Amino acid sequence: MSATYTIGLDYGTNTVRCLIVDVRNGREIATAVWEYSHGTHGVILSRDPNLARQHPADYLTGAEIVIKKALRQARIKPSQITGIGVDTTGSTPLPVDANGRPLAFDKRFSKNLAAMAWLWKDHTGIAEAGEITALAKQMRPHYLAKCGGTYSSEWFFSKVLHCKRTAPEVFDAAHRWVECCDWIPAQLTGNFKAGVCAAGHKAMYNDDWGGYPDAEFLGKLGLAGLRLSKKAHTIAESVGCLTGEWAKRTGLSAGIPVSVGAFDAHLGAVGSGIAPGTLAKIIGTSSCDMMVVPVGQPLADIPGLCGIVNGSILPGHYGLEAGQSAVGDIFNWFVNYIKAGSHEELTKAAAKLEPGESGLLALDWNNGNRTILVDQRLTGLLIGQTLYTTTGEIYRALIEASAFGALTIINRFEEYGANVEQIINCGGIAEKNPLVMQIYADVTGRPMKVSRSGQTCALGAAIAGAVVAGAHKSYADAQRAMTGVKAKVFKPNPKAHAVYQQLYPLYRQLHDAFGIGSEQNVMKKLIEIRQAART
Amino acid sequence: MSATYTIGLDYGTNTVRCLIVDVRNGREIATAVWEYSHGTHGVILSRDPNLARQHPADYLTGAEIVIKKALRQARIKPSQITGIGVDTTGSTPLPVDANGRPLAFDKRFSKNLAAMAWLWKDHTGIAEAGEITALAKQMRPHYLAKCGGTYSSEWFFSKVLHCKRTAPEVFDAAHRWVECCDWIPAQLTGNFKAGVCAAGHKAMYNDDWGGYPDAEFLGKLGLAGLRLSKKAHTIAESVGCLTGEWAKRTGLSAGIPVSVGAFDAHLGAVGSGIAPGTLAKIIGTSSCDMMVVPVGQPLADIPGLCGIVNGSILPGHYGLEAGQSAVGDIFNWFVNYIKAGSHEELTKAAAKLEPGESGLLALDWNNGNRTILVDQRLTGLLIGQTLYTTTGEIYRALIEASAFGALTIINRFEEYGANVEQIINCGGIAEKNPLVMQIYADVTGRPMKVSRSGQTCALGAAIAGAVVAGAHKSYADAQRAMTGVKAKVFKPNPKAHAVYQQLYPLYRQLHDAFGIGSEQNVMKKLIEIRQAART
Repeated sequence: MSATYTIGLDYGTNTVRCLIVDVRNGREIATAVWEYSHGTHGVILSRDPNLARQHPADYLTGAEIVIKKALRQARIKPSQITGIGVDTTGSTPLPVDANGRPLAFDKRFSKNLAAMAWLWKDHTGIAEAGEITALAKQMRPHYLAKCGGTYSSEWFFSKVLHCKRTAPEVFDAAHRWVECCDWIPAQLTGNFKAGVCAAGHKAMYNDDWGGYPDAEFLGKLGLAGLRLSKKAHTIAESVGCLTGEWAKRTGLSAGIPVSVGAFDAHLGAVGSGIAPGTLAKIIGTSSCDMMVVPVGQPLADIPGLCGIVNGSILPGHYGLEAGQSAVGDIFNWFVNYIKAGSHEELTKAAAKLEPGESGLLALDWNNGNRTILVDQRLTGLLIGQTLYTTTGEIYRALIEASAFGALTIINRFEEYGANVEQIINCGGIAEKNPLVMQIYADVTGRPMKVSRSGQTCALGAAIAGAVVAGAHKSYADAQRAMTGVKAKVFKPNPKAHAVYQQLYPLYRQLHDAFGIGSEQNVMKKLIEIRQAART
Repeated sequence: MSATYTIGLDYGTNTVRCLIVDVRNGREIATAVWEYSHGTHGVILSRDPNLARQHPADYLTGAEIVIKKALRQARIKPSQITGIGVDTTGSTPLPVDANGRPLAFDKRFSKNLAAMAWLWKDHTGIAEAGEITALAKQMRPHYLAKCGGTYSSEWFFSKVLHCKRTAPEVFDAAHRWVECCDWIPAQLTGNFKAGVCAAGHKAMYNDDWGGYPDAEFLGKLGLAGLRLSKKAHTIAESVGCLTGEWAKRTGLSAGIPVSVGAFDAHLGAVGSGIAPGTLAKIIGTSSCDMMVVPVGQPLADIPGLCGIVNGSILPGHYGLEAGQSAVGDIFNWFVNYIKAGSHEELTKAAAKLEPGESGLLALDWNNGNRTILVDQRLTGLLIGQTLYTTTGEIYRALIEASAFGALTIINRFEEYGANVEQIINCGGIAEKNPLVMQIYADVTGRPMKVSRSGQTCALGAAIAGAVVAGAHKSYADAQRAMTGVKAKVFKPNPKAHAVYQQLYPLYRQLHDAFGIGSEQNVMKKLIEIRQAART
């Protein structure tokens, strides 16, 4: 095989990244990153803690900047780049006009937060999510069975419906709503194909019931007439070829294929080498915990999972998506909002402690709970403080809480027959913080492997680029050639694990007391009082 | 009446203070403060979060420094000082030899933490407190009825017994154990009288059953032969007269009377103008919530109160003592350990918030719960954190938690017939932080008055000095002449109070879930795991 390369374009919460990869061996020859210019580290915030938006101009500016920068760094002929794959956060829908142009680019709406991209972690549609869940329970229970029994405020229709209710001028001006991961390939190729990853996990799309939710259901929500595609596609397909305009903007060759877009976690799982029996954990600001089960093998509907979607990760496999609404975001909160010291200082202090020694226990819900509770309103909790509790102790408790949340997800997979034979971690935190990996191993009692690549999502996107470019016959072939794990495996320490086996039941007690059960519980009542105080 | 003055000597957790007061009108003409030189701000700590000791050398050095300094500042003739009163923290017992000399002054024990003064907030005797409670429940239930049903780890016998168990060399070398508030007057006068305040509240002394616990009871604890006084005295009496040596060390006249010693909170209540129907709240590192009921008036045993003792505050009245194990200490923890900013910055940020707006709720138990749970092991809790929770929001939640704890105490007094007709606050926090006072008013729905004096404990001690010097016929007369409240009264804001009426039941839910109930609850299990991890 000659020396050809593909590009993975990876749109994260704060930055966009371009990775150039050798399709023969996965060698990453160049990478460039750009932080979005709008908002706080690329996220537009407001007084409402549930709101998080992005400006779509950053997506285009960013693509041009990082592709050009990576190409310069790579010192190869641009013609050696033969394909592009794209991953983004999600569900991150944006309203566009009939030409696919974001309403945010329209002067009328340039300052209207509702016309921006509604970032995955935007939870303004909480009430709407409740309505959609209630309606589906009554009319179309099978819609919910594949998405954990609850439709989330993070997802497509909650956001679109919340826009209709609170910013009707934007809703009325929108020709349609497009997921970010579908919008980027559409910009690059001039063609549009909805990806099954976003459609299936976030918009109740399923070929078994003929695609997206039916007109009667959408009508009851007040979303009759919402434009949606007939068919959604896997990353085995290309959307089209790079336009002349984008070839000019970037220096790439016009006409190279761009794969169907997917979410960062799903392509991160591909880049980690996901296969049946492997749990791929993509740990960043939040976590995504991904598994695949071959189509044809029996598979129960797993309550609390974000989704079970045919083809959402690997073609020919059900993609199972679970996750924690915040991991790195909680550590970042402690550093940036509590100003408790740097991650390095806190990690150093936390590493000196024995499990259980601080007497602290936390819930990892500062951004709600995605799996297994599917309740974005939930909040954090810390118990066990004394007058001598240190920031290092709290930081460790936050890491442990995150590990307990991770264990809860593993248990849920296995309770429903998806056995976890190995765990491969990737993402910034897995990469940079060995203490987190060791605590995950000690809490779960399982070895933690770390993906060889430090940019697995972008690598997964590049693999998609390689497959649509024809460099490999199948995803299995491409993964064999292009992915791997590091030599260092974090093995559980039996003594630490024994203490965590005492602590985990306490975490579960708090989890069940505040997460499940009555709406009268203290956490949920506090959220109601907070809402009332802010309106 | 001629211009005569008395001295109040006030031994706090971190500092000793000398106040010189005009006995005619309570005018405070000079004050001097000295921070103890040993340990961290005067408190000797160790790896064990339950340990807190003081070096008794600091008590003597401090007395000399602050009396001399205040005298210089006062610009009066030393002969115009006609009496001295003394208050200290408590229960703060120290082991002494046959001459009343602390074992800490003996070379053999100069580095032995068990030979120091066991500061009020030392909780190393938790197990012993449990034993004493259990034994009293079985053998002498009436002992417990006057101290809230539980003997605390903060108290005299828990500390002495813990010393016997863990440092027998110190226990065996001790001639006896003396409360700090009795030891200081003994040093100044060369005479010893046990005060009923310490004896009654901390060592189960009661004239109704013939004084301290009987020999059979102490024998069962392994404390047979412990030297204890036959009789304990009120602050109506003097211990003796200032010795020539101390006259020389300080410049005062030899022979002036020194009143029987009492605890800071009890003399603080006197200095606040306590009388039947008045709740005096002394708010500092911890809080003491004091009431008096005339002897002869019917009075129930109130569960959870630290004590009901004849003559412990005002002669002729039952002294009722309740309190929170930490108030300022929790705010200080947040500033000093979490390094969340200065008190000024945090107060400013907290003041901008509306009740309920942050969604946070805390328990004020970082140092355990004194009233009404009498459980020093209990720990803190914070619920409701998001990814945007600020330090100002947490600081406000800690203040609110403290106010909820204060309300729980008020409710307990009233449930048992001690009606609270007015509340007078004093101490550093009442003095310096109007936000705390406003939140207390808003949470309790009651006006908060603040004592005119900024150093009420020392003022109360000076009042005791004035009474034993014969400057006033009675405490009532002395208080009428020497105490008062500030013009500014913090009135409850009805709108804020309405929100806190929603939040308080949630506080009580957490209070009951983690404070009462099974030993299997998460908070108590965490404490067990912590203990195991540290041993």
